[in-house]
Amino acid sequence: MVEEITDLEELKDDEDEGYTLSPRRLSAILFAVDREDRDALMAEMEPLHAADIADLLEQINSYDRRRLILLYGEDFDGEILTELDDSIREEVIAVLNPHVLAEAVRELESDDVVDLVEDLEQEAQQAILGTLEDADRIAVEQSLSYPEFSAGRLMQREVVMGPEHWTVGQAIDYMRESQDLPDDFYHMVLVNPKMHPIGHVTLGRILGAPRGTRLTDLVEEEFRTFEVLESETDVAYAFNQYHMISAPVVDADGRLIGVITIDDAMNVLDEEHEEDIMRLAGVGEGSLADRVVDTVRQRIPWLAVNLVTAILASLVIAQFEATISQFVALAVLMPIVASMGGNAGTQSLTVAVRAIATRDLTGANVFRVIRREVLVGLVNGIVFAVVMGVVGILWFGSPALGGVIAAAMVINLVIAGLAGIGIPVVLERMGVDPALASGAFVTTVTDVVGFFAFLGLAATVLL
Amino acid sequence: MVEEITDLEELKDDEDEGYTLSPRRLSAILFAVDREDRDALMAEMEPLHAADIADLLEQINSYDRRRLILLYGEDFDGEILTELDDSIREEVIAVLNPHVLAEAVRELESDDVVDLVEDLEQEAQQAILGTLEDADRIAVEQSLSYPEFSAGRLMQREVVMGPEHWTVGQAIDYMRESQDLPDDFYHMVLVNPKMHPIGHVTLGRILGAPRGTRLTDLVEEEFRTFEVLESETDVAYAFNQYHMISAPVVDADGRLIGVITIDDAMNVLDEEHEEDIMRLAGVGEGSLADRVVDTVRQRIPWLAVNLVTAILASLVIAQFEATISQFVALAVLMPIVASMGGNAGTQSLTVAVRAIATRDLTGANVFRVIRREVLVGLVNGIVFAVVMGVVGILWFGSPALGGVIAAAMVINLVIAGLAGIGIPVVLERMGVDPALASGAFVTTVTDVVGFFAFLGLAATVLL
Repeated sequence: MVEEITDLEELKDDEDEGYTLSPRRLSAILFAVDREDRDALMAEMEPLHAADIADLLEQINSYDRRRLILLYGEDFDGEILTELDDSIREEVIAVLNPHVLAEAVRELESDDVVDLVEDLEQEAQQAILGTLEDADRIAVEQSLSYPEFSAGRLMQREVVMGPEHWTVGQAIDYMRESQDLPDDFYHMVLVNPKMHPIGHVTLGRILGAPRGTRLTDLVEEEFRTFEVLESETDVAYAFNQYHMISAPVVDADGRLIGVITIDDAMNVLDEEHEEDIMRLAGVGEGSLADRVVDTVRQRIPWLAVNLVTAILASLVIAQFEATISQFVALAVLMPIVASMGGNAGTQSLTVAVRAIATRDLTGANVFRVIRREVLVGLVNGIVFAVVMGVVGILWFGSPALGGVIAAAMVINLVIAGLAGIGIPVVLERMGVDPALASGAFVTTVTDVVGFFAFLGLAATVLL
Repeated sequence: MVEEITDLEELKDDEDEGYTLSPRRLSAILFAVDREDRDALMAEMEPLHAADIADLLEQINSYDRRRLILLYGEDFDGEILTELDDSIREEVIAVLNPHVLAEAVRELESDDVVDLVEDLEQEAQQAILGTLEDADRIAVEQSLSYPEFSAGRLMQREVVMGPEHWTVGQAIDYMRESQDLPDDFYHMVLVNPKMHPIGHVTLGRILGAPRGTRLTDLVEEEFRTFEVLESETDVAYAFNQYHMISAPVVDADGRLIGVITIDDAMNVLDEEHEEDIMRLAGVGEGSLADRVVDTVRQRIPWLAVNLVTAILASLVIAQFEATISQFVALAVLMPIVASMGGNAGTQSLTVAVRAIATRDLTGANVFRVIRREVLVGLVNGIVFAVVMGVVGILWFGSPALGGVIAAAMVINLVIAGLAGIGIPVVLERMGVDPALASGAFVTTVTDVVGFFAFLGLAATVLL
């Protein structure tokens, strides 16, 4: 064991690019696969964490992936499967020898198996569940019976608990006698005779107190439980907000049925961050390992929405064809107004979407924030109005044109601030994810308002 | 203690909006502040977690904030300060009675004090450090002597450790005798006589093993240490990638000097996610509590960059004024090509920036990913070329115009895919944060290419 640790420390110095797989190791692995040299492959793979092996499998192409998995054979660890991106997980499962797959899955804890199988096709799911022992399979099937994205799906069923009247000594004796303590647990949960959790004690406090101390004298001041049907979003928010490390899950009658730990909550937070960032850009659930056809399918809807909004904006321009044909300078300058509005709107929008996600934008401050965004739009509008007014005059020698673009800039940046904050807030009240839909609405507004204000003013002033 | 728990459970049912402050509680608090009714205020604040109180202070306006803090008085908890957003932390510190401030800070652990004071002005920093006892102040000053964003700044100095030859019994006896075990710790770190950490044991394993078991037989298989100068980004990445819960920090000679726990790493991850999402939208470090003038200052640079790129695009349009004056339809349709390119580019860009941040885009797959993005651009380009070709013919009755917009669409979407992935990759190799700068470059490329391809083809084909 100690030798292995030394090994790991050496590895750290070896990996010059921080914690990524080093290019050297990657070449060595692919070379070993080419020569079908299992010993060389094992030597290179041995120091890698399952998460790194999963990354490796995601980064190489599907042909190498298949050959690597077959050569790696029975050393394939179940944890690698749980770390793999959804997009290639099924492919890897299909390549794995059923015997290796069964062995790999059997090592996992129930929440990891749930995480592994919940997105699989029926057939692949059955293949995995079939390899489990009865007790484990039933535990996994029960978890799967809770709705997706609920606390029930996140929790593990192995809970370390004790009756509320226990002392430190009794708790320690109980844990020493247990044959199957979970790998990772951070609290002992105290339950009353009805199996309702009434508090929990950190392992540190148990270790720091004399055997005779009552556990109820050591419970944490902060104690929260989750109902099994609570959303995983709420669970993750609470873990992050209150710096929690683990928390019990109760059923509708308040009885203890599981525990959620920080790593589960971090996964959810990570996924939600990813979702927010991807949705803001209209990318859906894409990953690097997706094939071209999947990627196209993910991106087309957003581009189609954008096409509709772009055509809407063009219809506005079309109303002013006569004006443009007289002053072609308008065609040259009009994208500037729209583009500035789109950018300012996206700024407000991003702040709003992020604040909604972190629950910092509430009834208490929404009007103050809207006022601020409008004021910021006004100030920025005036700043860039002056700049563009000067540019308009210098470039086209027309103070009237300069005045028109300046006025349109102020109008569009104020509207951008208003739309950027107002649209996500309204969408959220309507139960629509603001990250998903706001972008299209905001740029539609800024394009339409930008073109209409600029060309409309031009038609009035210049003709 | 048990009563308090019941209290907290009742609170949970009371808060109908998930975990946010309920509007009812917020009104009650502001009402109490108005009447200067300290008892009513205390009753409403008592069940709130420090993180919720910090959120409350961020959401109300600065006048109410001041009155609330003064009325709340000496119950002000140091943890509230650590949870507060940077933008109002100094304001709150300035309002606090120096005696209350001293009391509040004295309760905190060293890493929290560091986190609290590192961004403060010299004067406010000294005011806080002056309230600490000598030993604590020296610990904080030592941490502050490490560079910002290093592991040294993140770590806490209180480490639970023991010599490598200890047994479970010796570890438990040691912890029972310790007067000041940290509030949160998850491992006992084993050190050799040179004070080098050689492994660590989870508290769960210590509790589950007989007293005679040697700790070295219980150490975790995975064990990583951080050098004190390592970047907090690397630390956070490792915590997330390897599902770590705590890890020792060593100095240049490999001696144990501190420990980083999951909550510190989560804070960093959270901040980096926030930074990525904000930078992609060009918002800088904004927060909802910022004043108008600060917000304007944060957003103007990006808008200025955008103005330059928009003017560049306009210069392209200006080359084709003659063409446009003959076919005003071009002015109507040209924003569509640019807008579709901008959106497709942003999609590729976001995937790339995110993959770089999660270290999933490496030398191993970069060419495959570039090829994929170009192919996706080609396929999407053809799809929308057909759509726009038809629209062009139906709207303007000109097959030639339809053909021109179709061809420009294909060209721009392919370029968008290439630029969207290529620009962040190149920026990253150059050591520039791709989240910060890629957006401006990519939309410049798609605007310029979009207008040039569309108007250039039009000038060739239609004239």
